Amino acid sequence: MEVIFLGTSEATPTAEKNQSAVLLIHNGEQILFDCGENTQRQFKIAKLNPCKITRILITHWHGDHILGLPGLLQTLALNNYSKTLKIYGPKGTKNFMGKILGMFMFVESIKTEVHEIDENGPFLETETFTIAAYKMKHMAPCLAYSFVENDKRKINLAYIKKQGLKPGPLLGELQLGKDVRFKNKIIKAKQATQIRKGKKISFMLDTSVNENCVKVAKDANLLISEATFLEKEHADKAKERGHLTAKQAATIAKKAKVKKLILTHISQRYAKNNQVILQEAKKTFKNSELAKDFMKIIL
Amino acid sequence: MEVIFLGTSEATPTAEKNQSAVLLIHNGEQILFDCGENTQRQFKIAKLNPCKITRILITHWHGDHILGLPGLLQTLALNNYSKTLKIYGPKGTKNFMGKILGMFMFVESIKTEVHEIDENGPFLETETFTIAAYKMKHMAPCLAYSFVENDKRKINLAYIKKQGLKPGPLLGELQLGKDVRFKNKIIKAKQATQIRKGKKISFMLDTSVNENCVKVAKDANLLISEATFLEKEHADKAKERGHLTAKQAATIAKKAKVKKLILTHISQRYAKNNQVILQEAKKTFKNSELAKDFMKIIL
Repeated sequence: MEVIFLGTSEATPTAEKNQSAVLLIHNGEQILFDCGENTQRQFKIAKLNPCKITRILITHWHGDHILGLPGLLQTLALNNYSKTLKIYGPKGTKNFMGKILGMFMFVESIKTEVHEIDENGPFLETETFTIAAYKMKHMAPCLAYSFVENDKRKINLAYIKKQGLKPGPLLGELQLGKDVRFKNKIIKAKQATQIRKGKKISFMLDTSVNENCVKVAKDANLLISEATFLEKEHADKAKERGHLTAKQAATIAKKAKVKKLILTHISQRYAKNNQVILQEAKKTFKNSELAKDFMKIIL
Repeated sequence: MEVIFLGTSEATPTAEKNQSAVLLIHNGEQILFDCGENTQRQFKIAKLNPCKITRILITHWHGDHILGLPGLLQTLALNNYSKTLKIYGPKGTKNFMGKILGMFMFVESIKTEVHEIDENGPFLETETFTIAAYKMKHMAPCLAYSFVENDKRKINLAYIKKQGLKPGPLLGELQLGKDVRFKNKIIKAKQATQIRKGKKISFMLDTSVNENCVKVAKDANLLISEATFLEKEHADKAKERGHLTAKQAATIAKKAKVKKLILTHISQRYAKNNQVILQEAKKTFKNSELAKDFMKIIL
C-alpha cells in the first residue's frame, strides 16, 4: 500500500505546495482523497498516470479541495478513460458535480457514478478493503475518511509442510477459514493459518475538534491530519474557522492510538518555520512528521 | 511593457508546461490573457502578485484556458482584493462567469465587471492603450486580442533648447500637438515634437486559419500564436480541430508583417522534439521563437 502526497498547502497554494490531494495505491485501486487545483499536473510531475484513478473521495466542497476536478475529468476524457469513475463526497456532492461540469465547455465526457454520504461509518466494502466516513466540523459539510485493508488469512507454511499438505484445493479451503480432512485427519484452519491484520489509514483534511475525530482515526497505522495553526498562538482562530491546531491533531492521534501522524494543510504564516508546528505536535505525540508535496509512504 | 508566459501547454498540462496564461504588464496595468488551471500558483512561482491583476481577457471557455479562474478569484478574495476586476470574453462569458461566481465560497466578495465582446475591432480605449478583439475559428466562440499602446508625442529636446523654451505649460501644449506662441514667434508642434509609435502585441491562443488572423496581428511588434501541429504531418487535423500548424502561424506572421512571432500551445506529440515546430515556422518566418513557461519579453 502506497500513499503519495500530491498537495499539502492550506487554502492558497505556494510556490512549494499545491492544494490538497493525497493518492492511495492499493491492490490495483488508485484512490484520490480530495483534488485541489492542479492535481492533474502533480500526477504528471510525480510520473503517475491519472487514468489509473479508480475512485475520488471528496472531504468537502471548498475550492482548495476540489478545483482540480474539472480539469482532471477533462484530461481523463481526452485520454479515453474507459472505466466508470466513482466519486464520493458529503451531502451536496451531486449538485456540485453538476455545477462544476457546467462551468466551462467540456470536451468529450467520461462515465461517472456519484455517491453522497450522509451517515457515519463504513459505506464501501470490497473484497480487499473497507472505507468509512465520519462527519467533521468545518465551515461546509465535511467528511473524514478511513481506509481499512480487510484482514487476510495467510497459510502457515511450516505447519502445512509438516502435515504433508501440498498446494491444491485443500489449501484454498483452509484460507477461507474452513477445517479440512487430509489422510483421515482433520487439519484445523486455526492451526494451519494465521490472520494478518489489515492496515488502516485515516484522512482528516479539514476540521475542528469534534467527537468523530478519534473514531475515524482509531488504531490507524497512519493518520493524515490537517494542523493549520499553533495551539499556543491561534487556538481561538482554529475553532472559529473550523481547523485544528498541531496540539489538537497530536492529541487525537494519541487518544486514537495511531502508529504515525502526518501533519498537512499548515497555515502559510508558518511557511518559513514549519518546524514549530512539528515541535508542538511532538510534545503530545512523538511519531509525528510534516507532509510535503510528492512525499511517499509505503505501508 | 513586459510579457510573461505563465502557461504554454496545449489542452493537457505536462510536468514542464502549465495550461494557457500570458501576463502583460504595462504602465500600472497587469492584464492576464487566459487563465488555465493553476495560473495562481504560476504567479507565486514567478514571484508575481496576483492582486495586481487589473483585467482578465478570456479567448474562449474551453477548460484549459479558464479553469484557473475560480481558484484565482478565491485567492484574490482571501487576500482582500479591493479593485473591481474587469473580465472580458466572447459571447457566453456572462453566463459562465455567473456559474463560477455562484459556486464557491468567498468568491462573491470581490467586485467584478464582466464584458461580452461580440464585435470585431477595438472595444477598450484608455489614455495609454487600446485593445481590440477579432473572432477566431475554433470549436467554441473564440477571440484573438491585440493590445496597442497609444502613440505618444515626445518633446524634441534639442529643438526646444535651441528656441529657449523651458519646462512649463507651453511644453504641455506642444505635447498635445498644439502650436504655441513664444517670444512673438510661433513654435510648431510638428517641429518641436515627434510621435513615438505605440507598440502592439497580438494574442492568438486557439484558432484555425481565418480571415481575421492577419487583421488582429497586422504590424504587431509581437505575435503570440498557437502552433499545435506540423503542417507536413497534420494539416487536416489542425483544420478539423480548430488549430494552426507552425507553417500557418508563420504565414500569418509574414502576411501581417509582424516583427517577432512566439509559438505556444504545441501538441504534446512534439514534446521531445519541439524544435521541429520551430524549424517549420522559421522556413516561412525567420524571427520565430518557442514559448516556454516563465519566459519574459520586454518590449
